[in-house]
Amino acid sequence: MDYETPQFFRVMQYARNADRDVVDMVSGNPDWGPPEGLRDGLRDYAELGADSYQYPPSVGLTELRSELAARRGVDRDRIVVTNGAGEANHLAMVGGLEHFSGEEILLTDPVYPYYAGRANFIGAETSFVPVDDDSRLDPDRVREGASEETAVIVVNSPNNPTGAVYGADAMREFVAVAEEYDALLVSDEVYDHFDYTGRFTSALEFDSPNVVTTNSFSKTMAITGLRVGYAVFPAEDGPNGDLIDRARTRHMLTNVTGSRPAQYAVLRALRTTPPEYYADARSRLVDRVDAFCEALSDVGAEYNRPEGSFYVMARFDDFPGTFENVYELIDEAGVAGMPGAAFGESRDEWIRFALVTPRVETAADRLAEYFG
Amino acid sequence: MDYETPQFFRVMQYARNADRDVVDMVSGNPDWGPPEGLRDGLRDYAELGADSYQYPPSVGLTELRSELAARRGVDRDRIVVTNGAGEANHLAMVGGLEHFSGEEILLTDPVYPYYAGRANFIGAETSFVPVDDDSRLDPDRVREGASEETAVIVVNSPNNPTGAVYGADAMREFVAVAEEYDALLVSDEVYDHFDYTGRFTSALEFDSPNVVTTNSFSKTMAITGLRVGYAVFPAEDGPNGDLIDRARTRHMLTNVTGSRPAQYAVLRALRTTPPEYYADARSRLVDRVDAFCEALSDVGAEYNRPEGSFYVMARFDDFPGTFENVYELIDEAGVAGMPGAAFGESRDEWIRFALVTPRVETAADRLAEYFG
Repeated sequence: MDYETPQFFRVMQYARNADRDVVDMVSGNPDWGPPEGLRDGLRDYAELGADSYQYPPSVGLTELRSELAARRGVDRDRIVVTNGAGEANHLAMVGGLEHFSGEEILLTDPVYPYYAGRANFIGAETSFVPVDDDSRLDPDRVREGASEETAVIVVNSPNNPTGAVYGADAMREFVAVAEEYDALLVSDEVYDHFDYTGRFTSALEFDSPNVVTTNSFSKTMAITGLRVGYAVFPAEDGPNGDLIDRARTRHMLTNVTGSRPAQYAVLRALRTTPPEYYADARSRLVDRVDAFCEALSDVGAEYNRPEGSFYVMARFDDFPGTFENVYELIDEAGVAGMPGAAFGESRDEWIRFALVTPRVETAADRLAEYFG
Repeated sequence: MDYETPQFFRVMQYARNADRDVVDMVSGNPDWGPPEGLRDGLRDYAELGADSYQYPPSVGLTELRSELAARRGVDRDRIVVTNGAGEANHLAMVGGLEHFSGEEILLTDPVYPYYAGRANFIGAETSFVPVDDDSRLDPDRVREGASEETAVIVVNSPNNPTGAVYGADAMREFVAVAEEYDALLVSDEVYDHFDYTGRFTSALEFDSPNVVTTNSFSKTMAITGLRVGYAVFPAEDGPNGDLIDRARTRHMLTNVTGSRPAQYAVLRALRTTPPEYYADARSRLVDRVDAFCEALSDVGAEYNRPEGSFYVMARFDDFPGTFENVYELIDEAGVAGMPGAAFGESRDEWIRFALVTPRVETAADRLAEYFG
């Protein structure tokens, strides 16, 4: 699998060029729109003076970092605002590989392709820990997979693509494994607002110098195009304190800083968005999960019911999740999913569907008809 | 000199914390504000639907790339929109170092510190070609400095910090040297709208497969905080065609994509901003150059009169451009410049002043009084 070129765009393009109406369930682009406070932030930014159009601090607007620090209960100096979680994960993974001994990055199978692509691109060895049949990541398997060669372990909860949510016990163990093997746990928590179980636990709760937590507002506020994320690093004056120093330098020399109107608008939205906005998104998704999973049951497909995030992986009889079959599903059923093979060997029979379209029921009906 | 941590923020912070009024001539932040079309773009973006808040193509909004391609007379496929010229230079320099044989990046002395910092950070050897007494970069010296070890040559015209503008003959020769030594010429042209001589020539004019041209709207539109830049690579189907392929992958795995409202607003501004906006900025700067240089003459300082960009380097008798002296000038004269040592050994006697403040005359008066 060539992870270096994530394949999402390839499938989306095929779907766009199809000769019929297609429900796009490929990309993870939330469809419900940003909170009004985000739009207000952009409106107000448009009226600001010349100074406000100049470089924000390289690590991000100070007020935004203060707001994040207060919400996450960490010292502001530990936070770097990044160009989305993509850059946050990049800084964490490259930094961990440089800082800790060993050449290996431990990932899961299935895996979010960007992690594997990045690991390959930066020259790391990769090792994949398979998830259990119920899509949970067993800490014992992570411990078995880790070794002195392990520099970085990447976990993602709620998970893309499996929908699993790792609870406190599992997360505590992932942190412990990282500490035992003197490695960095990178905990990507971009779906933290989409937990349908109440089990989600941030790696930040364990206050370990072997953890970098990454997050963004792309999914939470339905703004994947604004590119505002952040990473929380170990404190600079503690063990592994040079991780953040190096990340700040890398961020400065790569990007100088992130885009200011986007940071400004996210800050406004953080301060003004009522809890109902997030709750509505969750309940909307739960309804979609119900409708989609019911259709999958009806056609006898195997699938995971997501505990969090907004993806469903499904396996249909005699219809493995190859690119060819995904293209056939686009042309014949009018539903576009993502080939499971893009997420690793263990899922090459599966297809991933993203439930971030108002037409989930239409897609469910079409799949029921095609496979029924 | 520790180039890995550019020192601009350090001096700006000292100036902000000073116990008196200080004219900030440290940063290169234009003070005249963005064109109205840029604000209009942000206003309109705030009203767009949910779709418009999602990922733009990784290489940038298609319409923005088309507009740039038409203006620069190049094929759209050669353009990657980046998070400012910072990322464009990063992609070009790292890519050139990987692609071409040799471990050396050739820079100038004085140098824009981010080039040297990045070269150090990515593990390149650095070699510095001194500019002439009149601040011009002599192509013969570049040729003498180049060798089989040279993988990348970075030039910047109009130049920061010297204000020099390299004409067509010089630029043609820089391209020729890169071709002779099978190296990459990275031509950073972010000050192209600030040429007071009419001599500016883009490296694009020579249509060489050994050139990457970088640019941004940070200076042109007075929006350093929006982070919209671009790089023009050699065509993918020609010699060195894999440079752009690798840059696209690196960009995707580092940043995924740039911030969409910023790209949207820049596109609007490109389409609507009248030539007067750019002309006014130039004439405003010429007036400031006149006033500032007159004051420098009056106190007997040595200085360069900029042919382009908006920086003046000055040398005062018995007052070398150390951090200590720059801090003294902040505290005693109320004028903040940037220590010349930050730009390389040849300028450690000098101080760089950025003319992007409406208070250039006040600063000139203060310097005249302090040194007079």
